[in-house]
Amino acid sequence: MDSLKGLSFIGARRGGAGNQLFRGTNPATGEELAPDFHGATAEEVDRACALAGEAFSVYRNTPVEKRAAFLREIAAEIESLGDELLDRFVSESGLPAGRAEGERGRTCGQLRLFADFIESGEWSRSVIEPGDPERKPMPKPDTRLRYIGVGPVAVFGPANFPLAFSVAGGDTASALAAGCPVVVKAHSSHPGTGELVALAISRAVETIGLPEGVFSMLFGSGREVGTALVNHPEIQAVGFTGSAKAGRALFDLAAARPHPIPVFAEMSSINPVLLLDGALAERGDAIVEGLYGSVTLGVGQFCTNPGLVLLPDGSAAAAFADKLKEKLAAHAAAPMLNAVTCAAYGDGLQRLAETSGVECLLSPSTENENSGFAAAPALFRVSASDFSAAETLHEEVFGPTTLLVSCADAGEMERVVRTLGGQLSVTVHASDSDVAANENLISNLEAKAGRIVFNGFPTGVEVCRSMVHGGPYPATTDSRFTSVGTQAIYRFCRPVCYQDFPQAALPPELRDL
Amino acid sequence: MDSLKGLSFIGARRGGAGNQLFRGTNPATGEELAPDFHGATAEEVDRACALAGEAFSVYRNTPVEKRAAFLREIAAEIESLGDELLDRFVSESGLPAGRAEGERGRTCGQLRLFADFIESGEWSRSVIEPGDPERKPMPKPDTRLRYIGVGPVAVFGPANFPLAFSVAGGDTASALAAGCPVVVKAHSSHPGTGELVALAISRAVETIGLPEGVFSMLFGSGREVGTALVNHPEIQAVGFTGSAKAGRALFDLAAARPHPIPVFAEMSSINPVLLLDGALAERGDAIVEGLYGSVTLGVGQFCTNPGLVLLPDGSAAAAFADKLKEKLAAHAAAPMLNAVTCAAYGDGLQRLAETSGVECLLSPSTENENSGFAAAPALFRVSASDFSAAETLHEEVFGPTTLLVSCADAGEMERVVRTLGGQLSVTVHASDSDVAANENLISNLEAKAGRIVFNGFPTGVEVCRSMVHGGPYPATTDSRFTSVGTQAIYRFCRPVCYQDFPQAALPPELRDL
Repeated sequence: MDSLKGLSFIGARRGGAGNQLFRGTNPATGEELAPDFHGATAEEVDRACALAGEAFSVYRNTPVEKRAAFLREIAAEIESLGDELLDRFVSESGLPAGRAEGERGRTCGQLRLFADFIESGEWSRSVIEPGDPERKPMPKPDTRLRYIGVGPVAVFGPANFPLAFSVAGGDTASALAAGCPVVVKAHSSHPGTGELVALAISRAVETIGLPEGVFSMLFGSGREVGTALVNHPEIQAVGFTGSAKAGRALFDLAAARPHPIPVFAEMSSINPVLLLDGALAERGDAIVEGLYGSVTLGVGQFCTNPGLVLLPDGSAAAAFADKLKEKLAAHAAAPMLNAVTCAAYGDGLQRLAETSGVECLLSPSTENENSGFAAAPALFRVSASDFSAAETLHEEVFGPTTLLVSCADAGEMERVVRTLGGQLSVTVHASDSDVAANENLISNLEAKAGRIVFNGFPTGVEVCRSMVHGGPYPATTDSRFTSVGTQAIYRFCRPVCYQDFPQAALPPELRDL
Repeated sequence: MDSLKGLSFIGARRGGAGNQLFRGTNPATGEELAPDFHGATAEEVDRACALAGEAFSVYRNTPVEKRAAFLREIAAEIESLGDELLDRFVSESGLPAGRAEGERGRTCGQLRLFADFIESGEWSRSVIEPGDPERKPMPKPDTRLRYIGVGPVAVFGPANFPLAFSVAGGDTASALAAGCPVVVKAHSSHPGTGELVALAISRAVETIGLPEGVFSMLFGSGREVGTALVNHPEIQAVGFTGSAKAGRALFDLAAARPHPIPVFAEMSSINPVLLLDGALAERGDAIVEGLYGSVTLGVGQFCTNPGLVLLPDGSAAAAFADKLKEKLAAHAAAPMLNAVTCAAYGDGLQRLAETSGVECLLSPSTENENSGFAAAPALFRVSASDFSAAETLHEEVFGPTTLLVSCADAGEMERVVRTLGGQLSVTVHASDSDVAANENLISNLEAKAGRIVFNGFPTGVEVCRSMVHGGPYPATTDSRFTSVGTQAIYRFCRPVCYQDFPQAALPPELRDL
């Protein structure tokens, strides 16, 4: 681990040895990991933002080919970190090596996807409308529109994706693609992984010959470093993934600025899964298999984890619950990401168990409780009326558990859905006859979520042009955007109209062919 | 004026006779205009929003052809109001009959433009990506994206466009086009014009057979009715045009909701005009003519009024100032929109005159001060350094006045631009040689504004696909959107992804051909 210095990246320089120290922890063992990491000072935050502001005036005019080359260079540099990155990922996250490799692939794929997307020209949404000097009663001006970057972006990643939603994740990739410099607040749960990736990005900045302020990364606490970052006048937008509490706090800070800035915070979702009669009868066992895999994937630590299953009352549902319980009970405990997440999971399970009407079908086994932050699956059941009565059951429990909600019929299921807050995803399992019989129920699901999954499971978010990882509050703070897929770039873009410009002064993509 | 009852529109019903009464005023005479208008009660606000919420579940699934027919029917109903509408417009606004006619044309043209736009299919930004079950290591799901309406929208118009930015203006047209019901807070400066247009819309709702909650309009104060509207849980977005103070207040309310909602507030802009050396030498007189027309258009009451002119120091600039002063001095006083606007203009002029270093080249004539809310043009001059030192000179003075800023050279001009807040527009007058010599200056203008005008004037905003009437704060609360042109629809839309949907359950525009 010679590469790790534990110092922030302030443009091309490294941060000083601030006296706020912390270390990463191995969730599998609970042991601290060297080296010490030094929280950024207020002056360092200010310097990183000032450099970003300076860099913006150059970087926003960088030809897209050069920005695309930069994104591809970052991907190549990340890959050339080799096993050092994968090893640190595993030791800091407690996640298996296969996941580390998969997430690295996704991160690099995402960077290359944005490179392709901006090179395609599609991204700037150009519209050219020539003038008409003869139009009556007034001549029509020549007007041409394109989208440009908003300015420096602050990025806050979550604990649960140390690569794909972190330092070089979707927020950073989409902001850099748009022509916006990025200042990342590193997550304290995987500081070493963060430092290695930051090293890769800063090498790419140098190789491509960009202004140093295009990228900085700050270690430190959300309360101090994060607040200073969101309040800095040079910062023009924020991308955040994490808890509802932290996301809302940043949103509130940004809205209270003298010059408010947009915050896209992806926060909280219980991702309801609806099982309709026909599907349950036809494919009940297959759905158990799939749901089991989705609930336990990554120790349940996905924002798209299916935390709620609505199903029709009756013997099929009872058999379904028994089989799901059996699968979950046999699932080995595994370490969660950190002590806070593990403790929150325990608190969440207790809250569920203590809520009136909730039946605990499976308590998590405690056999592994001494090995780091291990957690085992749990399963609960409640009636639709008890569910609707208890606000607390509508809140996310982050971890490998789900809550079955027994509904008398599809009408009751629809009423339960209507009481839910905004979601990242809603999933429905339906047979052909279910589809015919439940047209309204299915077509109204879009009012609740950014993505509707049919006969599948919500975990595993495809990175593509038509993906939406977003949704109404509290899933995100702004349902008009997504944080996954190429559309994520528009969180950090704004339209500009050029009226009656001569060819020489127009941006290249708006000139006549 | 038999059509006017002075009662709000709560869906298909009319409001009760609430005891908060007010009347319109004729700005040309200062006389009150019958009838009394009754402010909506809290119950009426709640009922209008609840109806909008109910209507949304039906209206959002209305085929685009029907929504387009609705927009066209509104335009036809507005036209069939005939002279009654034009007369009321003139008597409530003090603006000439030609303006009333022009604004009606723009309003109806805008409704028809949105009808065409949604029928074109382009608006929903559909992306279809077929699945690939053979992809390794994981099959690729079938994912399809479209944009849908966010939900009921609250609309607040300004005093200065009683038709084109009011009850059936761009905010209402774009929200209805997106599939969002609308609740308008009527502007108290032109309540009769508002009532007539609301009558036209409610007739169209009935003719097309839409749920009544698709449109409501509430009379009353911003403080009471406006606050209740923005805080109502059914309201999902806000479109506002008006003062920085009122816009920010609504933005703050919306951000503080338990479930925050987006606010697009178009607020404040001084629309700088840059005159470069070559242009001044080649076309100084023509620029005087155009600038004079733009400053005095509509008694200076445009959000795109050119309130700031940066020009190079020297004899050409002195001659320019003399000629502009001469034109403005000969311009007759005319009534402003209402007493508040007229008083604010007077205060603004006084603020300018009292600021250190500001030279008053032309004081407004007071000969008409007894005829309603009349105002005459004014002209001021200041050096670049005094301008930059006085924050107060960066604020909008709403009315027929402008401030000349003398800059030593293009470098100083660029430094002045850098100190400015966000603008709706920036205009530059440049000769071919100016363009060649000032590449950076010109290309950096986009960082300040939503629209850059070349060798023209900022007033007169074309309604088209490539228009941007937006810009960084304080021009608007969200630079990522526009309130004029077809792109305005995206303020009220959000993306949804349909994953692995069967054809039968897909929205029509996402099905295979």
